[in-house]
Amino acid sequence: MKSFSAISQQLRSGDHKLLARCISMVENESEGWMDLLQSLDVTPVPVIGITGPPGAGKSTLISNLVQHYSKDGKKIAVLAVDPSSPFHHGSLLGDRLRMSLHFSNPGVYIRSVAARGSLGGLTDKAMEITDVMKAADFDLIIIETVGIGQSETEIASLADVTVLVLVPESGDEIQTLKAGVMEIADIYVVNKADHEDAEKFADSVLWMSQMKHNAEWTAPVVKSIATQDSGTKELIENIGAFLSSGAVNSKRTLLFAEKAYRLIARERMKDINKSALAEQLQQKINEKGFNLYKFVKSIVS
Amino acid sequence: MKSFSAISQQLRSGDHKLLARCISMVENESEGWMDLLQSLDVTPVPVIGITGPPGAGKSTLISNLVQHYSKDGKKIAVLAVDPSSPFHHGSLLGDRLRMSLHFSNPGVYIRSVAARGSLGGLTDKAMEITDVMKAADFDLIIIETVGIGQSETEIASLADVTVLVLVPESGDEIQTLKAGVMEIADIYVVNKADHEDAEKFADSVLWMSQMKHNAEWTAPVVKSIATQDSGTKELIENIGAFLSSGAVNSKRTLLFAEKAYRLIARERMKDINKSALAEQLQQKINEKGFNLYKFVKSIVS
Repeated sequence: MKSFSAISQQLRSGDHKLLARCISMVENESEGWMDLLQSLDVTPVPVIGITGPPGAGKSTLISNLVQHYSKDGKKIAVLAVDPSSPFHHGSLLGDRLRMSLHFSNPGVYIRSVAARGSLGGLTDKAMEITDVMKAADFDLIIIETVGIGQSETEIASLADVTVLVLVPESGDEIQTLKAGVMEIADIYVVNKADHEDAEKFADSVLWMSQMKHNAEWTAPVVKSIATQDSGTKELIENIGAFLSSGAVNSKRTLLFAEKAYRLIARERMKDINKSALAEQLQQKINEKGFNLYKFVKSIVS
Repeated sequence: MKSFSAISQQLRSGDHKLLARCISMVENESEGWMDLLQSLDVTPVPVIGITGPPGAGKSTLISNLVQHYSKDGKKIAVLAVDPSSPFHHGSLLGDRLRMSLHFSNPGVYIRSVAARGSLGGLTDKAMEITDVMKAADFDLIIIETVGIGQSETEIASLADVTVLVLVPESGDEIQTLKAGVMEIADIYVVNKADHEDAEKFADSVLWMSQMKHNAEWTAPVVKSIATQDSGTKELIENIGAFLSSGAVNSKRTLLFAEKAYRLIARERMKDINKSALAEQLQQKINEKGFNLYKFVKSIVS
């Protein structure tokens, strides 16, 4: 492989084959991946995170966004994180097919990565892959995750602006919506806005958003019908408004601090292997008088 | 305060006032809390985790469990983790009131702690508080969390047996249920089983459970009507079956490994403060050529 500075230059010039190889290198922790990351000329390309429950219409919405941004001459990367769970393969396959409309557009780069590791979590490399993309020639990066488990809160730590896509459901639905997830949204989209309960649902979401009392930004609610490309323009306007607001700067700082924290933790914990711990503990835990805190102290000190 | 071995002995003898003080000590990280934990005579008291969305009837179900177990002469501790989100205060208050039926029972100890820290997560001390309880004189510990954000997956790393309480909703509901959450359950409860869709819903849950292909244990589905104390006995039987199955041993080992990992990480990361990181990063991130991986390297090495 070439020198890292040559790679950095070539990424910037729009070499998507090289980009794909660099992403794979990071994903698989191939030799030199950390050096590659440290040599990247990362630029602050805005990252739009799109999340929400399965079937909410995220992929159609992203397809619309890509089309609109492309028309404006913007180059876009899409990172789709597939959950590892077997329950969603079917629907995701369909989503990917819908996205494939854009595969032939040279200004659009689409990459799917598997979510592995923690239950329902984002791939543990989503952050690094995004940074590789930020070193390429894109004007915008879109990250899509299915809202399962921890991935919604993780996407908020990757994206400059987080869009939560919801569909109008029964009146009880808002209570069921996890409060933690509602809180991460900078913009709500109520998709399938032609649904009979849509108006009432959108009102409830807006009410919850206004309850948050954030002095810098109150998350707006955009109504859309993704299958008809309705609401896309309004969503783009709201994304633009958030990205040029004061809120994005404080958010970005916290986001970088969170990233730095995780990277430090990963580095400091790389000698600790959970399976090896499990093996050590298997016998011990049934011994009378076993105390985990003493055990941990013996490892740490 | 007395010597730690005296405390340990007094806890074992059932001094609930001392227990309350020890829990507060751990919760607030008062001086000596780590020494206290290291001196605890922790015994393997079974921990039952109950989780599920708000309004599923968790507290009523726990109230029933407490009543049945008490009748059998068992001493029980209940740890209820309140989410920090404002959206649920109302319903939780009601839940606590329902639980208060048991406050006068000397064989029952109930403690509420606030979930703080990570979005929707369990309190970062739930593990330690459970261990303090394990050093007291209980036959069973029940942990209740509202299923928001990460707390469901976290409860699975605390409890020997995880019970996921669901209510029959529209047919789409299962798709909306986060796959990651479905996977953590050792036992499913379909509450409000007198609901018209209950039968169909329970069948779908069982179907998903059987899809998991776990050789050691297939999570059963218990139908209950908590308000009428219906299904409680069957739930208790299933909890007993899981706790005496081979599955619980492998689970417990992984659980301890996970706990040990977190404790090691906490110890190793205690010098890193996210706000301080944010302050350091605030200026840097807008500088041209800033690379987070280089920045992290300078801290780690």
